[in-house]
Amino acid sequence: MVPVLHFRKGKPGDAPGVEYDEIRKLPSENIPVYVSCIDYSPEQTLFQDIDDLDDFLARHRPEWSSVRWINVDGLSNMKVIHALAAKYQLHPLAVEDLLHIPERPKVESIGGSDSELQARLFIIARMLQLKNGELQNEQISIFLGHKTVLTFQESHGDVWDPIRKRIQTKGSRVRLNDASFLVYTLLDALVDHFFPILEHYGDRLEEIEDLVLSDPQRSTIRVIHKIKRELLLLRRAAWPMREVISILQREPHECMGDVARVYMRDIYDHIVQIIDIIETYRELASDLTETYMSCLSNRMSEVMKVLTIIGTIFIPLTFLAGVYGMNFRYFPELDLQWAYPAFWGICLAVSVAMLFAFHRRGWL
Amino acid sequence: MVPVLHFRKGKPGDAPGVEYDEIRKLPSENIPVYVSCIDYSPEQTLFQDIDDLDDFLARHRPEWSSVRWINVDGLSNMKVIHALAAKYQLHPLAVEDLLHIPERPKVESIGGSDSELQARLFIIARMLQLKNGELQNEQISIFLGHKTVLTFQESHGDVWDPIRKRIQTKGSRVRLNDASFLVYTLLDALVDHFFPILEHYGDRLEEIEDLVLSDPQRSTIRVIHKIKRELLLLRRAAWPMREVISILQREPHECMGDVARVYMRDIYDHIVQIIDIIETYRELASDLTETYMSCLSNRMSEVMKVLTIIGTIFIPLTFLAGVYGMNFRYFPELDLQWAYPAFWGICLAVSVAMLFAFHRRGWL
Amino acid sequence: MVPVLHFRKGKPGDAPGVEYDEIRKLPSENIPVYVSCIDYSPEQTLFQDIDDLDDFLARHRPEWSSVRWINVDGLSNMKVIHALAAKYQLHPLAVEDLLHIPERPKVESIGGSDSELQARLFIIARMLQLKNGELQNEQISIFLGHKTVLTFQESHGDVWDPIRKRIQTKGSRVRLNDASFLVYTLLDALVDHFFPILEHYGDRLEEIEDLVLSDPQRSTIRVIHKIKRELLLLRRAAWPMREVISILQREPHECMGDVARVYMRDIYDHIVQIIDIIETYRELASDLTETYMSCLSNRMSEVMKVLTIIGTIFIPLTFLAGVYGMNFRYFPELDLQWAYPAFWGICLAVSVAMLFAFHRRGWL
Amino acid sequence: MVPVLHFRKGKPGDAPGVEYDEIRKLPSENIPVYVSCIDYSPEQTLFQDIDDLDDFLARHRPEWSSVRWINVDGLSNMKVIHALAAKYQLHPLAVEDLLHIPERPKVESIGGSDSELQARLFIIARMLQLKNGELQNEQISIFLGHKTVLTFQESHGDVWDPIRKRIQTKGSRVRLNDASFLVYTLLDALVDHFFPILEHYGDRLEEIEDLVLSDPQRSTIRVIHKIKRELLLLRRAAWPMREVISILQREPHECMGDVARVYMRDIYDHIVQIIDIIETYRELASDLTETYMSCLSNRMSEVMKVLTIIGTIFIPLTFLAGVYGMNFRYFPELDLQWAYPAFWGICLAVSVAMLFAFHRRGWL
Amino acid sequence: MVPVLHFRKGKPGDAPGVEYDEIRKLPSENIPVYVSCIDYSPEQTLFQDIDDLDDFLARHRPEWSSVRWINVDGLSNMKVIHALAAKYQLHPLAVEDLLHIPERPKVESIGGSDSELQARLFIIARMLQLKNGELQNEQISIFLGHKTVLTFQESHGDVWDPIRKRIQTKGSRVRLNDASFLVYTLLDALVDHFFPILEHYGDRLEEIEDLVLSDPQRSTIRVIHKIKRELLLLRRAAWPMREVISILQREPHECMGDVARVYMRDIYDHIVQIIDIIETYRELASDLTETYMSCLSNRMSEVMKVLTIIGTIFIPLTFLAGVYGMNFRYFPELDLQWAYPAFWGICLAVSVAMLFAFHRRGWL
Repeated sequence: MVPVLHFRKGKPGDAPGVEYDEIRKLPSENIPVYVSCIDYSPEQTLFQDIDDLDDFLARHRPEWSSVRWINVDGLSNMKVIHALAAKYQLHPLAVEDLLHIPERPKVESIGGSDSELQARLFIIARMLQLKNGELQNEQISIFLGHKTVLTFQESHGDVWDPIRKRIQTKGSRVRLNDASFLVYTLLDALVDHFFPILEHYGDRLEEIEDLVLSDPQRSTIRVIHKIKRELLLLRRAAWPMREVISILQREPHECMGDVARVYMRDIYDHIVQIIDIIETYRELASDLTETYMSCLSNRMSEVMKVLTIIGTIFIPLTFLAGVYGMNFRYFPELDLQWAYPAFWGICLAVSVAMLFAFHRRGWL
Repeated sequence: MVPVLHFRKGKPGDAPGVEYDEIRKLPSENIPVYVSCIDYSPEQTLFQDIDDLDDFLARHRPEWSSVRWINVDGLSNMKVIHALAAKYQLHPLAVEDLLHIPERPKVESIGGSDSELQARLFIIARMLQLKNGELQNEQISIFLGHKTVLTFQESHGDVWDPIRKRIQTKGSRVRLNDASFLVYTLLDALVDHFFPILEHYGDRLEEIEDLVLSDPQRSTIRVIHKIKRELLLLRRAAWPMREVISILQREPHECMGDVARVYMRDIYDHIVQIIDIIETYRELASDLTETYMSCLSNRMSEVMKVLTIIGTIFIPLTFLAGVYGMNFRYFPELDLQWAYPAFWGICLAVSVAMLFAFHRRGWL
Repeated sequence: MVPVLHFRKGKPGDAPGVEYDEIRKLPSENIPVYVSCIDYSPEQTLFQDIDDLDDFLARHRPEWSSVRWINVDGLSNMKVIHALAAKYQLHPLAVEDLLHIPERPKVESIGGSDSELQARLFIIARMLQLKNGELQNEQISIFLGHKTVLTFQESHGDVWDPIRKRIQTKGSRVRLNDASFLVYTLLDALVDHFFPILEHYGDRLEEIEDLVLSDPQRSTIRVIHKIKRELLLLRRAAWPMREVISILQREPHECMGDVARVYMRDIYDHIVQIIDIIETYRELASDLTETYMSCLSNRMSEVMKVLTIIGTIFIPLTFLAGVYGMNFRYFPELDLQWAYPAFWGICLAVSVAMLFAFHRRGWL
Repeated sequence: MVPVLHFRKGKPGDAPGVEYDEIRKLPSENIPVYVSCIDYSPEQTLFQDIDDLDDFLARHRPEWSSVRWINVDGLSNMKVIHALAAKYQLHPLAVEDLLHIPERPKVESIGGSDSELQARLFIIARMLQLKNGELQNEQISIFLGHKTVLTFQESHGDVWDPIRKRIQTKGSRVRLNDASFLVYTLLDALVDHFFPILEHYGDRLEEIEDLVLSDPQRSTIRVIHKIKRELLLLRRAAWPMREVISILQREPHECMGDVARVYMRDIYDHIVQIIDIIETYRELASDLTETYMSCLSNRMSEVMKVLTIIGTIFIPLTFLAGVYGMNFRYFPELDLQWAYPAFWGICLAVSVAMLFAFHRRGWL
Repeated sequence: MVPVLHFRKGKPGDAPGVEYDEIRKLPSENIPVYVSCIDYSPEQTLFQDIDDLDDFLARHRPEWSSVRWINVDGLSNMKVIHALAAKYQLHPLAVEDLLHIPERPKVESIGGSDSELQARLFIIARMLQLKNGELQNEQISIFLGHKTVLTFQESHGDVWDPIRKRIQTKGSRVRLNDASFLVYTLLDALVDHFFPILEHYGDRLEEIEDLVLSDPQRSTIRVIHKIKRELLLLRRAAWPMREVISILQREPHECMGDVARVYMRDIYDHIVQIIDIIETYRELASDLTETYMSCLSNRMSEVMKVLTIIGTIFIPLTFLAGVYGMNFRYFPELDLQWAYPAFWGICLAVSVAMLFAFHRRGWL
């Protein structure tokens, strides 16, 4: 449940933006960082795992390569970040956003033909995964250049393996298209991963619904509360993604190809549908809380009814029994022979009258 | 209640869009698929049920035919989809949307005079039907070309039989107009089918209202919960339909005739009225939950009142009876001759005083 | 309470729009239909009740007549509708809307100088009246031509008698102006009739408020529920009226005179104020439900408190009395001479201690 | 609490707009009407209380007068209204709005250089005052001409005395500027008077908050209800004022000077801040209702707990005492010597066990 | 908790705007006012604490100074305000806003090349700090000229020390840029200070959540209420800040440099994220209230259940014991030898039957 409530941020008042020289001074942690590079063209592909980044960056890319995709898993090694930022001229503010987690999903167009900076599209997205029923939420930063795509992930392991396989498949659409189409494919995979998560929540909502309607437990409210909280997180991830896709689809940019832009419309439809479903689920969860409360009240009023029925029948009778248990010396009824059966007769009459009254009020 | 919570989707990370060749490779199920074709012009009509699709597609349409409407019931036979997609040059993304269920209602304009693709309007709509009190929700995909309309349904059986009859009627407006007017007529029938459904929910809301106000049962909350859930589904179907109709009415497209566009305004008015009624029903259902809770509280406080009145009258009297049942040796009252009648006198006095106090507080 | 929940509509799938010939075939009912015609110019007026419509339509209007207003009460006689639709060239879709009830208030501009159709403004409005405390809701259809106004009402009796009187008054503003000013005057009367209705609801809300705050009854929640429901209906009538007036005021049309357009601003202000008041009333009614629930809880907790106080005082004492009513042979206290007074002493002490404890907790 | 719920309006169907001649025919009441006139220029001022209006209007204004401000207190004397409306050519619709109370705050620009009517700005505003803790709500109508300002109030006594004093002060900004600056100053005073009212409600909300959190009473819910209702009224007064100021600041008008327009921005900031605070207060009041309900529930569950603890301890013991009070002839325990102490032992054990169980559940 | 509810304002009706001469006449308080000045250029810096302001203002700034930043802590000394307002030609309305607290955050562009006034950007912002768990809320007024920045704070002590340090650092970005970049840096520090506050509330919400779900106390509702209230305040501070930053980023102004404008986008992203988190927290807090109420109801219904179970088992048994304690002379059962064991048998049977019934209803 942590992700809604926790985030870390640079110390307030720190200089905004991170210059190339400053990156190197940032503390590096000892968590290993994986860098991999994929070059491809319609005819050829080359997959490399990079250990010596400096050496790799010094060499030129193969001439046949029409798209180069460099993926970095882990943000702890500042030397790696620095080397890539310097090589590909990443904007200081973008590098800052890349390192600060969590950043809101967004897209920024940097530089271009009328600027001294090289044209780049900088995209921050969220990768949601369901691991053992727990929602995993990772930040993905994507830089798109004319022929290069850089992706940065928080940790190893992602949802892009089917894409890697498709790149290897000769004649696949991603092979035939440009770098922006690769970015489209990556984003499409991220957005499509919302669906199994939604399905998971749909199933859980149905289970809870059954529980609430048939047998509301004390713990049910906690489960509802938890699901509401997680849907809140999902919504916070989905809404800005919609903005990101909407901007990518709407606003032209020299790095963004026409084909990719047309296909973006498809992701847009999906993310709108996702938001739709999330909002529907949130309303359902709210309804469930209300229904749960009603069921509780129902049950309590039933409990009360039982107590009341038992109580109102026996309390007067107990009083009567108490009366004839008194030890007054002058107590005429006690000596009557038919007194005891009469007592039972009165008890029976009172009980029947009470039950009849309850029945008329619809309590039975 | 399934439709709100369940949906199936391609595996995340799959290639987006479905190419003609890929369609053939998709798994086909053994559910039969019905294809029918209607050709008509102001003078003539031809209704065919098509068994051999390849043969049918190979032949040219009759020259007199001004509009051809091909309807496919069932999406399980990939060969059929492939043959039609190839023949009528359907866009891969559109074919993907057609196959993936449920897709959000939407309209997409594809190709046109300044594109190498042929002009098509691709519309996804929802067909809602009430069968045995259960809401049926089917996805309808419509392709509109210059002289051709293709419709794809999930299963056999639809709401368009009155339209087929009108096509057979010489001089009917649909006979006299073009393909886009047929699409208008189809959409109009889909939208008009919301009204009996709304009427059904209106009736049920009134029944529930009577129940809540006169005799709230334990099960009432479940019925309210169920109707809220179904109204949520209705709303999710109606809102995007509004967008679809709004786009069709507003944005010109070369396949959309002027007459059809004018008539679209009429559907638009209906769908706005439908949304209006749905929202009103949703507010009514919310009010009913609140009123139900109030009635429950009311009833419970009444139950409590009865217990309290009986309890507070008899508890002190029972104590008194207990007192005179004690076995102390030195107990002066026991020997008094008027003690027993006096006891009853006290009981009567206490009861009357209590009842008077309750009456003054308005509890009786 | 019916109007929110019920409506009738043509069978879904019916042909949209009603052609002149089709009108005649629609089933006519035997309810009488009243048609009246008023011709006026600044100098002259002529009021006619029309029995023979065909004869009337065949004759030309008097030359001096600057505005002709034909009013039809009742929509059941299809011959009348057909005759007028044919004579004044009413659009099929407009005739359909006119016959289908309820239609959402709307305004449509038909034809004009660049069209082969004659310029018409077609307006659907609602006439709300309060009859014996029940809200009456009637649909009014208005056609405005250059010099002619046609109005259709569901039944006999309307709110326009003061207008008829003003037409008879020489020099009144309506006499001096054109047909569109008459439409303005008619709409103004419809909108102004919301105010006494609002006043009625304002008074009822105040009564309920007094009831809730001073003496909430079981039945109060039903009254609140009913008023909420009727305000919902009022809102559904007022919002589209706002749109209608807003369009009339904003968008120029060749049948709409300048003077009438300026005066429309005045109706617009009124309808905005009406919506304002309705929303305020709705929030008040919501607040009342909440307050009612709080008062109920309050009352119940008071009931519980009485039971608890009585119970907690007497239950221990009853136990004590029971103890000394036991029949053990070896029971030393029973033989003590001061045991009985001591028992009363203990009872008194326990009671006082309890009462003091309750007092400290603020329960008394 | 009256102002939210009551208003009076002309009879529906009345002719809209009030012509000069009609004004005179309207019924006048006997409540005295105060008319005062202030003329000023940077050099000179003249304050007059006008008794004979006709005489006053016949005379020309002094030549040195750069601004004339005529203020009317009371709307009951139709002769006064008529004389001013005729003299200053007030539009019939404006006169109607002026007389009908309450009208929604609004601004209307009438006439101008391209119209035959003289340019006027007609403003309806609200003057809120707090008198003895009761909210007073008065309608103010302002007509702005080129060199003249007319103000109409419902009754005597206003918030403008500081402005009158400033007009008398030589060199004050209002003296140096034109008529539109005077209107700005008047509106500024009206808007600034919201602040002490807000402060009053802020204080009351704090008191209620203390009450709710420390010692919720039965009457507290009424106080919360009352404050919610009054905040609703405040909001209804503030929102249209925002529109009025926004239009005055945005839309140029020939009577509105540049300096006044710049200063309007300042009022606009204030009214936005006021609305902000009102909305915050409303949310606070809503939160208070919820918190109050929680506190009630809390308290009730505490009451129940006491009853339950006492009850569950003593009910079994009372039963036991009852058992040994039975009169069976063959009753072995009664003859045991240690039976009576054993009884007390059992009672003690049961009590301790119960208390321990309650303690473990956290009820003590 | 004070800041939401309290504010002070000039007396309503006071003259708007404060002229230079009027400032001097305003009452000064004896609270010391700190004025400091920092001059810097890429090469040099000069930090001064100013005691004699008149002397300081009389001297010219050093020629090398590219940016001068004058900071005033405390608004009580009117002589200081007057001297600076006169020297830097601050607009009267701006000075009024500066002195009136609290003013809503806003930005105003004053003067410029086509006006006789000098170009200034006047910004009002809020500085939020967390001191000992209490939210401190201070108003910051910033004037930006071409080469000068004036900042006014309510009291001594701010969040800008890291910025002062960075100005001293040669080669830091703030040293290399112009005055508008300094303003950007100041605003960035203010906005960044929201994050630790949000983190604080995030932690508290988690604590409360744990409390509510595991062990809801009577006092918990007060804590939730308090946090809701403070989040309301936070939101009221954050929303207008968003507007301020949005205007600064969007609308060009001659004092605002290009670099600063680009960097503003970064603050904008942060403030949007902050608002996002605040709204999420507010929804969480609302959910917590609901969950708390549910838990309360749960607990109460548990309490009731215990009472009911104990009561319904023992009340009939107590009656039975009472019956056999009666003193009727003719009482056949009393003489039966097996009567006493049979009594216990019946008790046992009744208890077991009751427990079984409760078990079947799921109460145990």
